[in-house]
Amino acid sequence: MNLSSSAPAYQALAQSYGRMYRLSHLQSMAGWDQAALMPPKANEARAAAMSEMAALLHRLRTEPELAAQMARADGEPLSEFERANLREMRRDWQSVTALPESLVQRQTMARARCEHAWRSLRPANDWNGFLEVFADVLDLAREEARLLADRSGLSPYDALMDRFEPGMTSVQLEGIFAEVRSWLPGLIRQVVERQRADTVIWPVGPFSVERQRALCERVMRLLGFDFDGGRLDVSTHPFCGGVPEDVRLTTRFREDDFLPALTGTIHETGHGRYEQNLPRDWLDQPVAQARSMGLHESQSLSFEMQIGAHPGFVRRLAPLLAEAFGDQPAFEPGNLAKLLTRVKPGLIRVDADEVTYPAHVILRFEIERPLIEGLIEARDIPALWDQKMSELLGVDTRGNFRDGPLQDVHWPEGLFGYFPCYSLGAMYAAQWFAAMRREMPDLDARIGEGDLSAVFAWLNDRIWSQGSRWSTDDLSRRASSERLNPMHFRRHLESRYLAAT
Amino acid sequence: MNLSSSAPAYQALAQSYGRMYRLSHLQSMAGWDQAALMPPKANEARAAAMSEMAALLHRLRTEPELAAQMARADGEPLSEFERANLREMRRDWQSVTALPESLVQRQTMARARCEHAWRSLRPANDWNGFLEVFADVLDLAREEARLLADRSGLSPYDALMDRFEPGMTSVQLEGIFAEVRSWLPGLIRQVVERQRADTVIWPVGPFSVERQRALCERVMRLLGFDFDGGRLDVSTHPFCGGVPEDVRLTTRFREDDFLPALTGTIHETGHGRYEQNLPRDWLDQPVAQARSMGLHESQSLSFEMQIGAHPGFVRRLAPLLAEAFGDQPAFEPGNLAKLLTRVKPGLIRVDADEVTYPAHVILRFEIERPLIEGLIEARDIPALWDQKMSELLGVDTRGNFRDGPLQDVHWPEGLFGYFPCYSLGAMYAAQWFAAMRREMPDLDARIGEGDLSAVFAWLNDRIWSQGSRWSTDDLSRRASSERLNPMHFRRHLESRYLAAT
Repeated sequence: MNLSSSAPAYQALAQSYGRMYRLSHLQSMAGWDQAALMPPKANEARAAAMSEMAALLHRLRTEPELAAQMARADGEPLSEFERANLREMRRDWQSVTALPESLVQRQTMARARCEHAWRSLRPANDWNGFLEVFADVLDLAREEARLLADRSGLSPYDALMDRFEPGMTSVQLEGIFAEVRSWLPGLIRQVVERQRADTVIWPVGPFSVERQRALCERVMRLLGFDFDGGRLDVSTHPFCGGVPEDVRLTTRFREDDFLPALTGTIHETGHGRYEQNLPRDWLDQPVAQARSMGLHESQSLSFEMQIGAHPGFVRRLAPLLAEAFGDQPAFEPGNLAKLLTRVKPGLIRVDADEVTYPAHVILRFEIERPLIEGLIEARDIPALWDQKMSELLGVDTRGNFRDGPLQDVHWPEGLFGYFPCYSLGAMYAAQWFAAMRREMPDLDARIGEGDLSAVFAWLNDRIWSQGSRWSTDDLSRRASSERLNPMHFRRHLESRYLAAT
Repeated sequence: MNLSSSAPAYQALAQSYGRMYRLSHLQSMAGWDQAALMPPKANEARAAAMSEMAALLHRLRTEPELAAQMARADGEPLSEFERANLREMRRDWQSVTALPESLVQRQTMARARCEHAWRSLRPANDWNGFLEVFADVLDLAREEARLLADRSGLSPYDALMDRFEPGMTSVQLEGIFAEVRSWLPGLIRQVVERQRADTVIWPVGPFSVERQRALCERVMRLLGFDFDGGRLDVSTHPFCGGVPEDVRLTTRFREDDFLPALTGTIHETGHGRYEQNLPRDWLDQPVAQARSMGLHESQSLSFEMQIGAHPGFVRRLAPLLAEAFGDQPAFEPGNLAKLLTRVKPGLIRVDADEVTYPAHVILRFEIERPLIEGLIEARDIPALWDQKMSELLGVDTRGNFRDGPLQDVHWPEGLFGYFPCYSLGAMYAAQWFAAMRREMPDLDARIGEGDLSAVFAWLNDRIWSQGSRWSTDDLSRRASSERLNPMHFRRHLESRYLAAT
């Protein structure tokens, strides 16, 4: 960090935020441990510890002195990076001072309890049990949304979404999703119809967990993940946790099918590389954080979909599978590419292909938005879920809570307003690769030769190294000459799934 | 915690210490993670985070308000447990206010750096490299010792030891060690001579790490470790970390020999059960902490030596080994007992048998005491080490730093004054079992029948559940009718190693 003595207020701010960053390191690691390793009886003590730390961080982030220092720093001579840092500090201060410490503390406790209970309620398909532990999480989220909305002037749901995707509104989102709704169902039908004639050979298991783990780590290395600054472990719901200096990815293994673990790991590796390559010299400052969760998902989906299902990459992957599990007809590159682009409406979001995935997101957006706004209650979710799954994907989910509204960790953890980021991410990812192809016409040939360096250099240059330097729209324009344009996503799907081969 | 409204000052104190307990939970887990899982490039960020938290905890523990509250609480109507809690708060406050925050912060950084460097310097046998990173750790320890000594009136070394073994002085320790020195070398010679005639069959490896791990976990269960409130993982130097609600034991595996991992795990399980059974209702208060590190080691050594090498327990262990690795002549119970009580002067403390172990401790005490007092320098250690190892155990250590002064993590971590606790622990363990046998004449028969419940009930009743309720001397008298008496240790060794069989 380049501290100039001519900017004492800015300097004091940078020190305060550095201190919060160091303390939140411990919070992040404990959160990862809780999901990946912690034994059950530790739950109460861990929840109490994390709640205490959340309250402490909340106090530090809401120090009245910070506002005064920000006002003074505004008039100080700052570099462009420092000014962006000051903007991000102010954004944080605005949103966090809207919430009283007691609310934050109650949220941490309620979420930890609910998330812990969810881990056994989901396999037990126990919706009513979930309603009991979820009630507090929802009440507190609504309270939070009201308080954030009062402060920002946004609607309650938009105010929650703004924490993950600054600048995005549900009005804009409705426009985007309406556009997607206009062509998605037809596209799904077309693709399913077209793939009906395909002969696809499925891999034959069992696949030992140890070999799957070794394969996943090998592919992570291929994708540039730095194991000297991170790990791969196991958790119920895969995620990318830890801190930029120590990125903790998780996956989950099933012996009958290695593809979920492999594609999930490729997805998390995208998140991981973004974190590992945020601007190093500024890591302890707000400006070094990832720009938004939509952009974060654009990295995981660049890895999982744009690269991971790219026919050129699949040709490199195929021999690794044969090495890991012994050769099988299913591992022939052409067949493997078909497997990785198989479209089938299904129950589980994280297992969904990239064509049906937006339907899962639209469904959740259409439920959680009125839920936060108090237009529906938690007990209404299953009926809406059943109706929308039938409508959007033609599948029957009645009575199956486990693979229905209990499938995601987001709601138990109070993460409302996050789901849209997945589809924004898919759209941005398509937009990044469209821009790369304009700049590098031989891009697909290079991927086919196993050379991913151009892709990584582009992503590092335009996205990773930029942190939160620009607004999302500005970043998008600098990276790809335009703001978010869902047309690239539609073109990507049409070219991959409907083009004559 | 039973908070009485007639004791407002005490109540405020209990809340403050509860808060520190919850924050230090995160520090403990991060410390465990650092040793067991953390990738190398995370070291700087982790050290900075832990240093920040150490400084914060230091500020909280040294709040001037605490001293005023303690003075007021003295006059409040308190239960006997509350009064003991107040005494422990005062003990903590006295020692911690002797140290300025900047010193604590510099120590955390220096220790983390040194410990991290040590992990690669030790295998490289690089003593000069170690001297460079160790210099700061030693300087800061001397500074700490001087400050603690000024406050307590103890000598510098005693002031450091007092953090681990309250009430113990080096004068008393010199007396104890002088007594041990008077018979130990003779005893070692006698035992080695006597065992020369024994035919011992060594187990034949390799022993797969996975099977060793499963065996260790099985034996931990047999010894009552609660896996719903703890884990077993791997680290360079085995230890018992985490928090009482989430005990993280570590061990290390080598494929050519399973005994170090197994006996090390049994040792750590003793620490772990102490932690898991500290007084539950008081866990967030100082009075619930383990009484001293000597007492902690008395639990690990009760498990490793008193139980683990007990012929009755060995008969139960033998079939588990055969199940884990396939049957071998070495697993015959009589042979196994001989293996577990084999006495051989060697280089490595943690691999030492219980007869030669005190020699390793006396050596370290004789080096670290003058080192802290400034009578010798770090560069003098190897020559002293070589001389004393030759003198006490007749082994040649010249040029072998890896298995000499670089073998322990204690000095890199600035843990001066800890080593004596190992031998105090061995002596207390022998004293506990002597007391048990007086109260339960059929104890050995019950252990032989595989019934350890009486042992666990005794330890839980007299030691674990008592936390820091009494001074060490009082605890010892309540548990075994006398204060520390090294005679029981000598009798234990003579009865196990020299009695006619």
